[in-house]
Amino acid sequence: MFKLLKTSGQVRRGVLKTAHGTIQTPFFMPIATAGALKGLLPSEARELGAEILLANTYHLHLRPGEELIKKAGGLHKFMSWDGPILTDSGGYQVFSLAKIRKLKEDGVEFQSHLDGKTIFLTPEKAMQIQAKLGSDIHMVLDECPAADAKRDYVEKSLALTTEWARRSKKAASKKSLVFGIVQGGMHADLRKRSAEELRGIGFDGYAIGGLSVGEPQKTMLKMIDTTLPHLPVDKPRYLMGVGTPQDILEAVERGIDMFDCVLPTRNARHGHLFTSRGVVRIKNEAHAKSLKPLDPDCACYTCQHFTRAYLRHLFMSNELLGLRLLTLHNVAFYLNLMKEIRQAIKSNRFQVFKNSFLRTAGETDFRSGDV
Amino acid sequence: MFKLLKTSGQVRRGVLKTAHGTIQTPFFMPIATAGALKGLLPSEARELGAEILLANTYHLHLRPGEELIKKAGGLHKFMSWDGPILTDSGGYQVFSLAKIRKLKEDGVEFQSHLDGKTIFLTPEKAMQIQAKLGSDIHMVLDECPAADAKRDYVEKSLALTTEWARRSKKAASKKSLVFGIVQGGMHADLRKRSAEELRGIGFDGYAIGGLSVGEPQKTMLKMIDTTLPHLPVDKPRYLMGVGTPQDILEAVERGIDMFDCVLPTRNARHGHLFTSRGVVRIKNEAHAKSLKPLDPDCACYTCQHFTRAYLRHLFMSNELLGLRLLTLHNVAFYLNLMKEIRQAIKSNRFQVFKNSFLRTAGETDFRSGDV
Repeated sequence: MFKLLKTSGQVRRGVLKTAHGTIQTPFFMPIATAGALKGLLPSEARELGAEILLANTYHLHLRPGEELIKKAGGLHKFMSWDGPILTDSGGYQVFSLAKIRKLKEDGVEFQSHLDGKTIFLTPEKAMQIQAKLGSDIHMVLDECPAADAKRDYVEKSLALTTEWARRSKKAASKKSLVFGIVQGGMHADLRKRSAEELRGIGFDGYAIGGLSVGEPQKTMLKMIDTTLPHLPVDKPRYLMGVGTPQDILEAVERGIDMFDCVLPTRNARHGHLFTSRGVVRIKNEAHAKSLKPLDPDCACYTCQHFTRAYLRHLFMSNELLGLRLLTLHNVAFYLNLMKEIRQAIKSNRFQVFKNSFLRTAGETDFRSGDV
Repeated sequence: MFKLLKTSGQVRRGVLKTAHGTIQTPFFMPIATAGALKGLLPSEARELGAEILLANTYHLHLRPGEELIKKAGGLHKFMSWDGPILTDSGGYQVFSLAKIRKLKEDGVEFQSHLDGKTIFLTPEKAMQIQAKLGSDIHMVLDECPAADAKRDYVEKSLALTTEWARRSKKAASKKSLVFGIVQGGMHADLRKRSAEELRGIGFDGYAIGGLSVGEPQKTMLKMIDTTLPHLPVDKPRYLMGVGTPQDILEAVERGIDMFDCVLPTRNARHGHLFTSRGVVRIKNEAHAKSLKPLDPDCACYTCQHFTRAYLRHLFMSNELLGLRLLTLHNVAFYLNLMKEIRQAIKSNRFQVFKNSFLRTAGETDFRSGDV
């Protein structure tokens, strides 16, 4: 399933084989939460270099429901994407989106953020839903504590997460890969414990969850450093929901193989664009008359055909095309970054690439500034 | 500039030559009000069969301004479309969108619907703005009375419109085609007067404006019937802002060559889809589990790749991709209708086509119903 092609220090390059195709690692998964990449077609994501998409169990369960998707021939057919799909279990969304949630031994009861309906999600049900969706990689149901959760709470939560992982593994479909999710909050020893427990159960891959939830980057990196030595070298490692281009470079350096993040799509919709020279906030008056492309180093359709002045005009006019073109660019930027990272690892110059990238694009932390 | 290739009764087929290419008539212009086709790329409109786009002087003057567009190399380059563009003069938008407007002998003073700024638009200025935009067909500034305007008002308004047409012609760029706009409200004799006066001035083409503003279809068709005999046969006739597929068929039958309308794009955003079997309102529960394509007779990307269930899911989830795919289909439907109309005229079966189309798709008036 997973084959390491090259290791240099902690940095790794490999291939992950799934039922719908093989993916080069390290990779980034554009997010199709509800089965759609915001304004983009799956075929466009593929042209940009996407080899796998991420969809969400929580969202698709609430709407339109896994039964319909199964009847439609599965999520691949439903959304017209024949490459690999990873589905998140819903654990994080229950934590971040649902109104009122009650953790029970057996699962989690919550109210849908759409209509307030009470839903009870168990580890087994999360796996069944994902099997019906027909995704290639299934994530176990976990509980994600807040960044500032007390140790007592995190420890109790972790016990539940491990137990749920055990039950998930048992309930998992044999047709797909199943990944465990390391939790443990911001506590190094609990992260270690979680990794060891999951490793004991045995999964096709291991995710690190519950990071990038408000903690400083330093803390996040420390948790990664603490966790990775306790995960098997020959299985893929997936850092969930992270992050900025800087975060990704730091994590690849530490041995992470897989990423997903809402930043490229969500930020595009807020006019926050990632470029090779740093962040462009397209609303800024400075771009109103700029006939330059968004990113002179980018080969995407947006940068090849339109000026900042035009893109700003569309954004200020709330034109759909603007959101589409900006989303396209940001996704292209992330996928291109991953391509460059893979090439750099291949040619033994990851450190050089990382330093050069951060020097040119990363004076700011990609969450502020404008060029 | 305009060449009639075939006439059969009042029905006509021809070609209209512009600075950016030749267009087969009768044609429909997708609307890029602010220089963007809602969610679509110009290249996609071309693939669907669009040979000309419409943009709006009023909107582009307010934002981002014609000076910027001129600096950017003109509207074609700004929006990345190298085919013909027709720009509306802004007269209709001043009538329908602007807050507080004062008609004066010299022009119209109005408040921008964006920021309330006072703007004074004269016939000369409308032509200058269009010259700066660099569009291929310029429309004269007109005054558009409401459907229920009193005859006294319409008569006074018409005198102004004719005078403005005269001044527009004088101020017009020699590089583009200039069209006059027939007004006269719902008064047959005033429509005749307007047509004759414009013909006296002499234009490259003649539009009929001020229709589809709330009057019954019968009244609209009567106004067309009244007007056309007084326009030159060898110039293109453009019915502005009309209409449903039925309206278009009726108007082609009477000798109209050009159309534009917000219906395909605007209705798509409201989940109102035109299909060969009639209107589909995608929100309807009836489509929730439908694995049929939106329109089984349509070759567009949306109909070839997605089910109604998926499109409804995207629409209910407010996914950008949904609006894009629905817009794509509606524009494809209109452009395909025009293609079929042209083929039917060519092979002497326009009446047969019209009757067959209305029987299959048009039991309802395309403004209601669902299939």
